[in-house]
Amino acid sequence: MIPGNESVLGKPDEPWRRRLHEVIFESETPAGRLFDKVIVAAILVSVAVVVLDSVPALNRRWRLAFDIAEWFFTLLFTLEYFARLVSVKRQLKYALSFFGIVDLLSVLPTYLAFFFPEVHALIDVRILRLLRIFRIFRLTDYVAEYQMLGEALAASRRKILVFLSAVLMVVLIMGTLLYVVEGPEHGFRDIPTSVYWAITTVTTVGFGDITPKTEIGRFIASVMMLIGWGTLAVPTGIVTAEMTARRHLRPQALQRTCDNCGAAGYGPEARYCQMCGSALPPALRENTQARRSEPG
Amino acid sequence: MIPGNESVLGKPDEPWRRRLHEVIFESETPAGRLFDKVIVAAILVSVAVVVLDSVPALNRRWRLAFDIAEWFFTLLFTLEYFARLVSVKRQLKYALSFFGIVDLLSVLPTYLAFFFPEVHALIDVRILRLLRIFRIFRLTDYVAEYQMLGEALAASRRKILVFLSAVLMVVLIMGTLLYVVEGPEHGFRDIPTSVYWAITTVTTVGFGDITPKTEIGRFIASVMMLIGWGTLAVPTGIVTAEMTARRHLRPQALQRTCDNCGAAGYGPEARYCQMCGSALPPALRENTQARRSEPG
Amino acid sequence: MIPGNESVLGKPDEPWRRRLHEVIFESETPAGRLFDKVIVAAILVSVAVVVLDSVPALNRRWRLAFDIAEWFFTLLFTLEYFARLVSVKRQLKYALSFFGIVDLLSVLPTYLAFFFPEVHALIDVRILRLLRIFRIFRLTDYVAEYQMLGEALAASRRKILVFLSAVLMVVLIMGTLLYVVEGPEHGFRDIPTSVYWAITTVTTVGFGDITPKTEIGRFIASVMMLIGWGTLAVPTGIVTAEMTARRHLRPQALQRTCDNCGAAGYGPEARYCQMCGSALPPALRENTQARRSEPG
Amino acid sequence: MIPGNESVLGKPDEPWRRRLHEVIFESETPAGRLFDKVIVAAILVSVAVVVLDSVPALNRRWRLAFDIAEWFFTLLFTLEYFARLVSVKRQLKYALSFFGIVDLLSVLPTYLAFFFPEVHALIDVRILRLLRIFRIFRLTDYVAEYQMLGEALAASRRKILVFLSAVLMVVLIMGTLLYVVEGPEHGFRDIPTSVYWAITTVTTVGFGDITPKTEIGRFIASVMMLIGWGTLAVPTGIVTAEMTARRHLRPQALQRTCDNCGAAGYGPEARYCQMCGSALPPALRENTQARRSEPG
Repeated sequence: MIPGNESVLGKPDEPWRRRLHEVIFESETPAGRLFDKVIVAAILVSVAVVVLDSVPALNRRWRLAFDIAEWFFTLLFTLEYFARLVSVKRQLKYALSFFGIVDLLSVLPTYLAFFFPEVHALIDVRILRLLRIFRIFRLTDYVAEYQMLGEALAASRRKILVFLSAVLMVVLIMGTLLYVVEGPEHGFRDIPTSVYWAITTVTTVGFGDITPKTEIGRFIASVMMLIGWGTLAVPTGIVTAEMTARRHLRPQALQRTCDNCGAAGYGPEARYCQMCGSALPPALRENTQARRSEPG
Repeated sequence: MIPGNESVLGKPDEPWRRRLHEVIFESETPAGRLFDKVIVAAILVSVAVVVLDSVPALNRRWRLAFDIAEWFFTLLFTLEYFARLVSVKRQLKYALSFFGIVDLLSVLPTYLAFFFPEVHALIDVRILRLLRIFRIFRLTDYVAEYQMLGEALAASRRKILVFLSAVLMVVLIMGTLLYVVEGPEHGFRDIPTSVYWAITTVTTVGFGDITPKTEIGRFIASVMMLIGWGTLAVPTGIVTAEMTARRHLRPQALQRTCDNCGAAGYGPEARYCQMCGSALPPALRENTQARRSEPG
Repeated sequence: MIPGNESVLGKPDEPWRRRLHEVIFESETPAGRLFDKVIVAAILVSVAVVVLDSVPALNRRWRLAFDIAEWFFTLLFTLEYFARLVSVKRQLKYALSFFGIVDLLSVLPTYLAFFFPEVHALIDVRILRLLRIFRIFRLTDYVAEYQMLGEALAASRRKILVFLSAVLMVVLIMGTLLYVVEGPEHGFRDIPTSVYWAITTVTTVGFGDITPKTEIGRFIASVMMLIGWGTLAVPTGIVTAEMTARRHLRPQALQRTCDNCGAAGYGPEARYCQMCGSALPPALRENTQARRSEPG
Repeated sequence: MIPGNESVLGKPDEPWRRRLHEVIFESETPAGRLFDKVIVAAILVSVAVVVLDSVPALNRRWRLAFDIAEWFFTLLFTLEYFARLVSVKRQLKYALSFFGIVDLLSVLPTYLAFFFPEVHALIDVRILRLLRIFRIFRLTDYVAEYQMLGEALAASRRKILVFLSAVLMVVLIMGTLLYVVEGPEHGFRDIPTSVYWAITTVTTVGFGDITPKTEIGRFIASVMMLIGWGTLAVPTGIVTAEMTARRHLRPQALQRTCDNCGAAGYGPEARYCQMCGSALPPALRENTQARRSEPG
């Protein structure tokens, strides 16, 4: 879900395509900035239109207005999609990138609604285009936050996968058990339904549309709930440990070591060694990570 | 929600207004202390009156008593509000401060109830005035706790915002998906309702007033629940990492400061100042906390 | 809930009371051990009788047997209660101790059931007597676990109190808001009921017996759920930070410092200073915490 | 749930049984690898058959096909079970091992279904055989993850047990309390049902099939929910603290070992061995991990 860097798509050679690229993909020029703001506003308004269109009372009254608005935005975004395609060098790469696919999905449902009317609400997916907003408004710090979250999740990915596979096995067996114990007459219609109920229970959502009615079923459900509650600690622990470690880790890369006595762990603000009192080497800069020049 | 420091509002010049300021805003004098206690009692009783008044059985029996009590407290708090206004120097600043607004909202609903009878229960908001209680009873330690919580939350604020915005996008898309899949005949009346259901599910609240009935809807709901469960770890991790880090900063009781340049935070192992290179004072021993005698 | 140490109650002087004290309060002698096991078995069986007695089908069939069993155990525990009273020196202290009160509450409901038949199920409280089991079976390690949990909770007590008071304010205001918005016709009968619903929602329990039906009510509920979900991180963070700190803290008390260069943090296994190579002072022993004799 | 190491079961002496052992238990040879893949596919397909068979619509249409498939897989797994028995040296040990029991349970329900038709869905337990998959596909890293999770849980096992026993006591007492307060007319039919409700509430699952109706019952339920919410932090804290501690043990890549006595675990700041007082080898630098050249 982390928005990819779109500067790798390359600038085209023709002047008018370069100009288009500047407007669409860069936000340094006034024109680019205006373009970005218009698009963000269009996304927000078009999503609002879809949401409001679904409310029967509003739909009855303003059906025509909503339809016009939806077609207007869909045509606008279709135009934008082709403009983006034209203004990059590597067009296939854009078409297959995260944002390329989102941009396409943002307009497709309106056209598909000719054939399958019920899918038209799916153009809501265009809300994902707002992820670009982070780049647009120079919210670089927010991008860093997103990336840190993403990194922590990615680093815990395998542990989470292992955990999820164990949860799925437990949920399948427990669901089957309650299907056997309670049976279709108490709402446990078939095994898929029972597994749905088991997931409902283990995650502590507990809709209550299906509930055990027999003594033994309630006993098994009680055990499941306590297990689910106890294991809630596991994914929490996984990510927390990861994030705590990440916090400790970050500044480490920039720490310096005394050339004289080898004492380590100095932050960028330190100038003299705590252990031997000799001058420390100059601090590394955070972004460039340039090699420090040795004192002669 | 952290109560602001009201000492910045300034003392007025006239003696009688200064006297009023002492009684209302300070709690060192016996009169000020008494005033505070009376107000706290009045807040608690008046909130209790509103709560009990809403119970039909009690309302039928003691309607008159409740009405009289409500008007008595509202007039009392109105009087107090004007007294507070009079007794500070910067009156606009008070009126726009957190407590100024709360004080106003505490009396407004009773008056508005002339025009909109149903809002009168909103005077419950006067419970927020109890936040002053922390200052009144010298619960300075509790204030410190509040502030530490507040700081940890504030420090994680941006991460939480980023996380919430991601959750909102997911919830909008998932809600739309279930609106398309289940449709109004299974309770997913419109997209706002579906988004409400999606929030219900992702947060593991699970009221069960709306539930998916089709196979595919239950499958999507199951995936959402597992995602919601897995990501429960994220906000927990954010705040926990923050609080753990905050704690590590704490035990500075044993840290030393350079006598030469004033740089602080040296552990027991340091011998020279990182900043100026001069020798540090000897380390304190952990248990006795006495200065150790240097070997001659 | 941590079981108090009952050895402070004192041994009586008369030989027969001393003998009784040995049997009841000590578990070193064979008689004392047998007594403990009989009592544990009696507690478990008597609680099982109460639980089974409440099931209508079983009650109809074995009513007489259950009644006899309940009276048998109640008389047994009454006898035991008086025996305990007789066999300690400070009788009032026992009567007012945690276990003294639990022992009394374990027999009272059966007698009270003459006057208020519905309370007789409350003798279930005798399950709390099982807390003694930890002492009985020498589960000293488990007691240590209990105590560490208790300490962590006690250390976080104030933070949790502050947090709970904030939660109660939020819940009162939110409950009132929904009472005003939804009103009695949607199940929000009065403010206490609305506050109950708000607690149900914020804690993510979500029974679903009362749910908002209006658009605005659902919107407020959605905000509450997200807030409740986000703040779930706070109590978790509080206790986790406390426990993490506690882990790091423990071995600290036993750490040693080099007499020669002052380097600190040596565990009990270290013999030479890492920094200057001189011999360390002898390690402190964990339990006695005796002062170490200085080498001459 | 950690799959045991099956290499301890021993190879038989006869050549044909050794050959069978190679195919079944080892996955180095092409035949062994093929065997593993066939079995994994058979498990997945057979579980899918059981799940689909439970759906009434599918069952009506393809009953015969499902029955044939189930008998085919059951006979296959029965054959495999006997082949495994034959191909190991210590047959009893295999039969009583985790996988031995799972292998047996994977086929038993189909045979038992002759006598008790409703149990046949329990052959779903054969999904547990997939735990072998980790070994089969050389997913050794995943096994490490499983083991780390298992270790963290095992290390916290006692704390979790203590916590669960406390939860069970609370739940029994609270359930009894609500049985007394609400009674059978509000759904609290008997004490086991009330305890089931209490578990539902404390774990924040909240099905809502049984809910308190009286004022006092709702008040007690509110207190329970807040307690349950507050204590959610405890198991989380237990495991998180454990995992955080476990992580800190990890980054020993940079730690040094004494050349003289072999004592390990020295950080970059240490200069002399704690155990024998001899000089330590020079510290590794973090990034290059090359030995640093001593200043002459």
